[in-house]
Amino acid sequence: MNPVRLTGTVRIVGAGLVGASIGLALSKAGLDVVIEDASPANARLAIDYGAGRAPANGDLPSVIVVCVPPDITAEVVARELRDFEHAIVTDVASIKGQILETLKSQGVSLERYVGSHPMAGRERGGALSARADLFYSRPWVIAPNAESNLTARSAVEMLALDLGATPVVVDPFDHDRAVAVVSHVPQIISTLLAARLNDADAADVALAGQGLRDTTRIAASDPKLWVQILGANSNEVSKVLKDFSADLTSVIGALENVDAAGSLATLGDALSRGNRGVEQIPGKHGSRNKHYEQITVMIDDKPGQLAKLLTEIGEIGINLEDLSLEHSPGAQIGLVELSVLPSLETKLVAALQERGWRIAG
Amino acid sequence: MNPVRLTGTVRIVGAGLVGASIGLALSKAGLDVVIEDASPANARLAIDYGAGRAPANGDLPSVIVVCVPPDITAEVVARELRDFEHAIVTDVASIKGQILETLKSQGVSLERYVGSHPMAGRERGGALSARADLFYSRPWVIAPNAESNLTARSAVEMLALDLGATPVVVDPFDHDRAVAVVSHVPQIISTLLAARLNDADAADVALAGQGLRDTTRIAASDPKLWVQILGANSNEVSKVLKDFSADLTSVIGALENVDAAGSLATLGDALSRGNRGVEQIPGKHGSRNKHYEQITVMIDDKPGQLAKLLTEIGEIGINLEDLSLEHSPGAQIGLVELSVLPSLETKLVAALQERGWRIAG
Repeated sequence: MNPVRLTGTVRIVGAGLVGASIGLALSKAGLDVVIEDASPANARLAIDYGAGRAPANGDLPSVIVVCVPPDITAEVVARELRDFEHAIVTDVASIKGQILETLKSQGVSLERYVGSHPMAGRERGGALSARADLFYSRPWVIAPNAESNLTARSAVEMLALDLGATPVVVDPFDHDRAVAVVSHVPQIISTLLAARLNDADAADVALAGQGLRDTTRIAASDPKLWVQILGANSNEVSKVLKDFSADLTSVIGALENVDAAGSLATLGDALSRGNRGVEQIPGKHGSRNKHYEQITVMIDDKPGQLAKLLTEIGEIGINLEDLSLEHSPGAQIGLVELSVLPSLETKLVAALQERGWRIAG
Repeated sequence: MNPVRLTGTVRIVGAGLVGASIGLALSKAGLDVVIEDASPANARLAIDYGAGRAPANGDLPSVIVVCVPPDITAEVVARELRDFEHAIVTDVASIKGQILETLKSQGVSLERYVGSHPMAGRERGGALSARADLFYSRPWVIAPNAESNLTARSAVEMLALDLGATPVVVDPFDHDRAVAVVSHVPQIISTLLAARLNDADAADVALAGQGLRDTTRIAASDPKLWVQILGANSNEVSKVLKDFSADLTSVIGALENVDAAGSLATLGDALSRGNRGVEQIPGKHGSRNKHYEQITVMIDDKPGQLAKLLTEIGEIGINLEDLSLEHSPGAQIGLVELSVLPSLETKLVAALQERGWRIAG
């Protein structure tokens, strides 16, 4: 754990996955953490789990972190600012603009408030899924408003740093535009794609490969939470979805008149724009996607085989950029795809073959 | 390699990724393989690479595998049936119905023809990317037509088995309906999603997480090949896309009138249908998705660390169901997510912690 920058008592309101994870990490780091929840059972669970202590009369928190569902975040932030008149207050909701608007419209004074959004989560919620390392090396958006004072900004930055996250200062409305395109739209598109499988024969779905698995993984996310997120960021999300829908209509038109002049060009253009879009996504370690070489090794699907392979790669002295296991329906064999810098490919293949590993080619 | 079931000479027409991979595997298994390509340079490359020999006068292949682009597959199949009147002919194109229709409309006699489609590929094409294990443990669709004789069916099944694939007999039109929903629609949806990033600020895209990466990975695929596939399966693909589009329109309507009665229910229904859709996808080893437990371990991002972890898991004697590396933008730390059967979670966590590994929670 990093040296602790925050001092005093940290009060966490909301003992779900994010609140309990923050409490766990700060408690481990030796801070005095108070955690509460509208549900006494949830609060007790988080406390039993090590995420903090119950509130006591006279608590004077230096920082308050509001970790409640998006639809009640503004209300709880306003209440906490009122109840604790010297505390810095932040929240962790996935949307920032609407919450700020609500607070402003209620005439709440916002010097001591800075919204934030840790870019981390799990498919499972609740205190039992909490992890002290949930935020480790993830971006933590800090979204000050025009009134936020420097003490508040700095306290929220220290919170992010104490949790091992990387603070990124973003305007609240810029944040909502950004998460619409990188998170909310992918969620709804993945959801709608997965929903198509409900109308398909089981035998058809049985031919699914890794592409379908990857594109639909996040469709397994919690509907209750996502209804709130999408509802609260509906303007930004619908803007991007309408552009998506226009592109989709043009592709459907091309497919329905596939022999017409220009139809194949429409498809080709769409596919090329998709190629360029993927290249915009930063890769590992914040860099742009590098073009790694992939090497595939066949291993028996039993304990120790993958470890043996990786031990030998360690002995060869080569750092893997990425590794994935390919699932082979019906087979007890594993395909391990190793990604390495292009300059290392030949060396690694030769060294692995010398050691008897079965490589592609 | 499996014992060889095929006998005689196998002739491969088309020396791209799939043709050269088949040639490589069958040559290694000791079969006489002839490989040719409309481009003499491509053919020579595949031959140099070990994928077979050049054709010779008097070649009498028992089986011919047509591995050319989808738009010329029917033409080449017809020619091969004519040129080699005792050979069984198959093709490996990603679409089956249109090819069969074209052959029928030309009055080609189809007793000796059985279409097929190995469910395998790579993002890179060409003979240089060929791998003898490309088809290993992948489904290989065998799509006989009404005229196909038993010898032809059995020869194509032996081909699939000799390549280590799992034969699955499917009607050609059922095949096209299936790949529309599990492969072609995910491709175009992923493409259109990635294309939205071209209109976004780089700073916005920098907040991307694993969800965006997973949903857009296949958008990096080859536009030239996909124009042909989508063009040839346009009916089935556009049917599914229109249903998708209707769902999307309903979601956009709900987002644009988010305060109207029923809007949040529309979003919630869509999200729940997405949840159910994901559950339709078969998981590892052909089984339905099991609910594995995930354990996250933090490791230093340097050679040998992952191997050390997996060696110790091997010593503990636990089989991993899945493993993934999480990329941490800007950090030199790796998060390794291990999936294990729920009954093994406690044992593994305890054993790893005892050995000093940093685990979630």
